[in-house]
Amino acid sequence: MSDLTTFLDGFDERDWQTATAADGPVRFAMVGVGWWVTDQAAPAVTASELCETTALVSRGKEKAAAAAADLGVEHGLSSKEFRDGVAAEDYDAVYVCTPNATHLETVEAAAELGKPVLCEKPMEASTERAEAMVEACEAADVPLMIAYRMQTDPAVRRARELVSAGAVGDVAHVHGHMSQSLLRDIFSDPDQWRLNPDLAGPGASVTDLGVYPLNTTRFVLDADPLAAQSMLYSEHEGFEDVPDERAAFTVRFPDGVFASFSASQRAHETGFLRIVGTEGEIALDPAFFNRNDAGLTVARGDQTADIDFDSVDQMEEEFDYFADRLLTGRKIYPDGTHGVTDIRAVEAILAGETATRSL
Amino acid sequence: MSDLTTFLDGFDERDWQTATAADGPVRFAMVGVGWWVTDQAAPAVTASELCETTALVSRGKEKAAAAAADLGVEHGLSSKEFRDGVAAEDYDAVYVCTPNATHLETVEAAAELGKPVLCEKPMEASTERAEAMVEACEAADVPLMIAYRMQTDPAVRRARELVSAGAVGDVAHVHGHMSQSLLRDIFSDPDQWRLNPDLAGPGASVTDLGVYPLNTTRFVLDADPLAAQSMLYSEHEGFEDVPDERAAFTVRFPDGVFASFSASQRAHETGFLRIVGTEGEIALDPAFFNRNDAGLTVARGDQTADIDFDSVDQMEEEFDYFADRLLTGRKIYPDGTHGVTDIRAVEAILAGETATRSL
Repeated sequence: MSDLTTFLDGFDERDWQTATAADGPVRFAMVGVGWWVTDQAAPAVTASELCETTALVSRGKEKAAAAAADLGVEHGLSSKEFRDGVAAEDYDAVYVCTPNATHLETVEAAAELGKPVLCEKPMEASTERAEAMVEACEAADVPLMIAYRMQTDPAVRRARELVSAGAVGDVAHVHGHMSQSLLRDIFSDPDQWRLNPDLAGPGASVTDLGVYPLNTTRFVLDADPLAAQSMLYSEHEGFEDVPDERAAFTVRFPDGVFASFSASQRAHETGFLRIVGTEGEIALDPAFFNRNDAGLTVARGDQTADIDFDSVDQMEEEFDYFADRLLTGRKIYPDGTHGVTDIRAVEAILAGETATRSL
Repeated sequence: MSDLTTFLDGFDERDWQTATAADGPVRFAMVGVGWWVTDQAAPAVTASELCETTALVSRGKEKAAAAAADLGVEHGLSSKEFRDGVAAEDYDAVYVCTPNATHLETVEAAAELGKPVLCEKPMEASTERAEAMVEACEAADVPLMIAYRMQTDPAVRRARELVSAGAVGDVAHVHGHMSQSLLRDIFSDPDQWRLNPDLAGPGASVTDLGVYPLNTTRFVLDADPLAAQSMLYSEHEGFEDVPDERAAFTVRFPDGVFASFSASQRAHETGFLRIVGTEGEIALDPAFFNRNDAGLTVARGDQTADIDFDSVDQMEEEFDYFADRLLTGRKIYPDGTHGVTDIRAVEAILAGETATRSL
């Protein structure tokens, strides 16, 4: 009983934090002023313990200045000003939230300025470009973190600890899914960049959503994928240029662990992750979306524990984790090399449907 | 509200039943006296409204007679006596629950006696033998039903109605899993027939467990599979002769519906089915096992309904459904041809791992 009490008391504790507000803040330039920055990232940083936003960067000066004024941020910079190092003394790190296929150039610019980088997922449009991003940051000796916000979600961290402690025995199967209705619920404009391969890279659902169950599984199992199969489908309006309005993909992890994943940008908004082992199972349901009704269920033999909790703001946790790492000089877990593995998997999954047997 | 009330009131109603006890009973000979017959099927028939067990059949006379005495059944017959038609006037139909790869000969014997057949799943060890079973029953003009007990499970039937009524919009993704610890929790003898290809057919997990999510999905979607991919793994003691200690397989249904399935005979006992559409989702969790804590969750947009109910005995429902069909001369839904489709899929899934891309 005391074990469970300890588990519950420590549930959303920041087991990764050693820095305090007195050590900070880490001041951010945020590149990209889309809804994720204005509605999610910037408010999270405002609420955070260790971070502050001091510059917003957009292609055009006007848009950047308007967003900065709107959010009460000191500097609104054009991309050119950012590249030229304008106001660089007023920020310590760069958050990259531009369209996927433009991450590399933005990260290269940040690296040239000597600024540590927190880059949104998916990391880039190809393995080659993702690797170039790692090289740019290594050459400039700046830390690079990929923004896998699930890795600082307390429920996901507790799931990883449980798996590591043998709570489910040997993991045998994983199921994970993430979907949303991109054009109906999020953006009404079918011309938006997430469906444009020039800006988003080769996919829409695997790249933007499928990486959540994939990367979260890697984190929870502490293992990297070995091989993948996929089935792809695109049929509806807006998805003409991408292969994966829907994608189902199976990923093999070491020791014969099979992960059955799926993702769609044109379906009911839902997400879950379920891990079945020889002795028990863990379910995160719902999972992946940044909202409050998160749940964690752990079953072992005939016993089941349902843990309800108020989820933390995933973006706030993520920014403070990155800041903590910068302030204490410690190693970042989801670094660029870690991110490249996902891009390699995404490329393989999107390269076309793998062989099927007709029935 | 009245809609929901009607839905809940009718939840476990037998929407398929028109016969009454006065029309019956249908008297069964059960072939095979393993635990499924003694612990599940025979008690279910005893509790049923329309059925009765009047004969038990086993290879040896002694075992059959002992089981019959034990369960208070009139006749205990050897297989030879059964084939010779001993006591055939005392039963109306035959339930086949022998090892999978022996179903055909038993069904042929029943058909020769002119008896309608309820045959356990998986139907047979190969498509060829499953087709021969259909032909034998057609030639003898006897009805053949495959014992998919999920198809008369009220939660599964309500799920099918909800999908058909458009509750989740167009179905996009399905996830389904079933696992149990065969050698630890169910049979301690590693020599048991389910792991012997000569008796069980070419697989252990896909054939015995994987058919549950597969067939239930077919029933709920009212659709048949078009293509499959698979990953297979066998490593542990007892699974030397089968390829699928664990199997993950993706099945394509019409209209780009992808079903991500998995099954294992060496994992925590658990099962679930989740159907995600463009407008909502349905979850049966737990699913497949014949137990009382079944649940059905329906989400549509921002609304969610969790329906808890005491599950009926799936075997009792199934036997009464078959009897009702026989007594009223109506068409059986999961007939032999329906079953052949699963065997064809199982064969394709087990033919060896389909192509993967290395990562």
